[in-house]
Amino acid sequence: MNEVRVGLLGLGTIGTGVARILIEQQELISRRLGKNVRLVAAADRDLKTERGLDLSGVRLTDDASDIVTADDIDLVVELIGGYEPARTFVATALENGKHAVTANKALIAKHGEELFPLAASKGVAIGFEAAVGGGIPCLKALREGCAANAVESVYGILNGTCNFILTKMENEGADYADVLKEAQELGYAEADPTFDVEGIDTAHKLSILAAMAYGSKIKFDEVFTEGISKITAADIESASELGYRIKLLGIAKPHGDGSVVDKVEMRVHPTLVPVNSQIAQVSDSYNAVQVSGDFVEHTMYFGRGAGERPTASAVVADIMDIARVSPDGVEYLAPPMAYVAEERRDLQTLSVADIECEYYLRLMVKDKPGVIASVTAILADHRISLEALNQKERHASHAVAVVMLTHETTEGNLQAAISRIVGLEAVEEDVLILRKESTVA
Amino acid sequence: MNEVRVGLLGLGTIGTGVARILIEQQELISRRLGKNVRLVAAADRDLKTERGLDLSGVRLTDDASDIVTADDIDLVVELIGGYEPARTFVATALENGKHAVTANKALIAKHGEELFPLAASKGVAIGFEAAVGGGIPCLKALREGCAANAVESVYGILNGTCNFILTKMENEGADYADVLKEAQELGYAEADPTFDVEGIDTAHKLSILAAMAYGSKIKFDEVFTEGISKITAADIESASELGYRIKLLGIAKPHGDGSVVDKVEMRVHPTLVPVNSQIAQVSDSYNAVQVSGDFVEHTMYFGRGAGERPTASAVVADIMDIARVSPDGVEYLAPPMAYVAEERRDLQTLSVADIECEYYLRLMVKDKPGVIASVTAILADHRISLEALNQKERHASHAVAVVMLTHETTEGNLQAAISRIVGLEAVEEDVLILRKESTVA
Repeated sequence: MNEVRVGLLGLGTIGTGVARILIEQQELISRRLGKNVRLVAAADRDLKTERGLDLSGVRLTDDASDIVTADDIDLVVELIGGYEPARTFVATALENGKHAVTANKALIAKHGEELFPLAASKGVAIGFEAAVGGGIPCLKALREGCAANAVESVYGILNGTCNFILTKMENEGADYADVLKEAQELGYAEADPTFDVEGIDTAHKLSILAAMAYGSKIKFDEVFTEGISKITAADIESASELGYRIKLLGIAKPHGDGSVVDKVEMRVHPTLVPVNSQIAQVSDSYNAVQVSGDFVEHTMYFGRGAGERPTASAVVADIMDIARVSPDGVEYLAPPMAYVAEERRDLQTLSVADIECEYYLRLMVKDKPGVIASVTAILADHRISLEALNQKERHASHAVAVVMLTHETTEGNLQAAISRIVGLEAVEEDVLILRKESTVA
Repeated sequence: MNEVRVGLLGLGTIGTGVARILIEQQELISRRLGKNVRLVAAADRDLKTERGLDLSGVRLTDDASDIVTADDIDLVVELIGGYEPARTFVATALENGKHAVTANKALIAKHGEELFPLAASKGVAIGFEAAVGGGIPCLKALREGCAANAVESVYGILNGTCNFILTKMENEGADYADVLKEAQELGYAEADPTFDVEGIDTAHKLSILAAMAYGSKIKFDEVFTEGISKITAADIESASELGYRIKLLGIAKPHGDGSVVDKVEMRVHPTLVPVNSQIAQVSDSYNAVQVSGDFVEHTMYFGRGAGERPTASAVVADIMDIARVSPDGVEYLAPPMAYVAEERRDLQTLSVADIECEYYLRLMVKDKPGVIASVTAILADHRISLEALNQKERHASHAVAVVMLTHETTEGNLQAAISRIVGLEAVEEDVLILRKESTVA
């Protein structure tokens, strides 16, 4: 029986999970594939830690370079994370005629456009299902399952840490800083949580989804990105009173003339979604990706967005897809970015000022007569109409919070209005701007 | 550019949708595929009806036999439905070396086991994503996306008509017969709704999912099947008071010694699911499939389970997957039933008596002293313990409803207890038995 030999870079959490599947599910994999997949070698700087796995028969090394050039390896799995040395190792593996599978969203978001043609030129495949949505086979669903559709929108809860924090803030009425601290103690958030809570991780993933949906190049640097760190328990409560839940969403939409897409909208920010929508139910560290198409309507893919075992499940699904066509049938795989290479275009990103949204605004104002009148006059001046306005009770000498939901307007117009509003003597500088989406499933 | 020529059997709702995609999205499909897919011919008994489509350039015929033998067709799409003549047409197409794609769950559930080897022997492919879950790419997710997992359970809301009726009964407190009538008037239910409401359609789909999950043969005849026609508005309310929603689920689970599966449990019945679970939120005519695996944990796939455009989306996804490997790379496709043919086993179906469940029981009893004591004594005698017991108010001279939730027991043991309970003079014959699942996502 034909055999595919795997080399693993990184025996951390996910690497251990991948090794575990390849060892424990060997028979199941062969029954599904008609070939064996064998873990031949693994590299990690730390070879001492007990991983609860019998790795006898696996060549262990602390030098990843060995694996990416080894003659007895057909497929390299990169689970080191980050940009470098991951990029160099994956590129070297591809140059040496080895397939590559990675869970590294940063790598694909930043260097995918150099790795895809390299893989194609060497006749090998590159898989990255685990880079978006953890264990959820959402890239396959978008790339293949919804392939007959012009994609109308992609919405994703793509970061488990943020969703865990927002869920806990909602359930316990707790403030951001307290929940973050608890999440760090539980190991759900990093000591430096910036990457997660400021939306960068979500932006990496969204840039991949958007490029795949619309046949464009991956443009991570152009994603409009805001995190969750300014949200208070009071905002979550205000949103709830209005019938919404706050989720950190990655959102991609097409713009153009009829069916021809010429610009792609990409944004990551805390978003109000209707409380009874499917995506609003996605709680704790779960992830979900909604893909809506002109024929399929709304679809949603739900599951664990991180963790040893779920992420390893997606990595091994890629290994199996590639093993099935290895060594001679790589041309028969669906193209990694859903469009054949020569049909992928360099679409512009919609400029931030042109994004159209409904907005949730939270202003802190001095409780004086006429303030609301002045604020609403400015909004009216910018032709921004209001769907709701709630003035909260005043707490002692503090300023009072005014929460507004607007109808649709452009980001540019809204920002112009806001800059005038914060110029009012009775309004404090710090305005919280959230965005609302109504077309979620 | 290489081209794949498609012949369509049936220009009803879904057939029209498929023709519409192949015509309107021709350029998109080529950009994703690197080949053209062209609709060459279509057969329907009715060629007069205006379908809102420009079918010029498509050969129209009222004789399907022409298409399944035509030299200028590479792939036949069967959208006639039912067992015959669909089976004969698909078999003839395969025998003539044409790929086949179908949305026909009855056909695959009943005749798949004869069609799969026929396709393999002719070196052609057979696709049936649209047969389960309509537009949702759930078979691909199970077959490929979760391929690294031993599947621990499959749960599906697989029939839009039943889910529409149950949602409406819950939202309006209406009774089954009234909602069914309304659904029929709206065209959401057939004049003879038996196939849908008695769970047969769900059983067709479940038998395919179960066989794919566990590497067994499709055994539609062995699915334990109960429909929704006995559920009352009062049952939905009782379930709600206990924290549950009632959904018609198809359920498949493996049984065996360790990781070796030797029996498959398959059942379709109205099921109590926790009201805050993801699957409980799936409302109206939406479908969802939950796949839980030993590595991926819970995943769920959500979308439209029926309708012209969503179902056509799944049909064309299959066409594209097959077109990509046609004519010479069929061997590189994932096997249609997720395991290579020689590894698919003839696993036994778990006998109904051995199914273990938690139960919801609704008894109508005469309001006399000692009745509850007698009923609970019989349950205790069978070692069935209760999680909850609610006696409803009596309506005039009618018997009173008693609702019980039991802890886990076997179907055989429960039925033995029930047959003794209905033997009590104060208990009416008609006991409603629903089942409860707690491990949904």
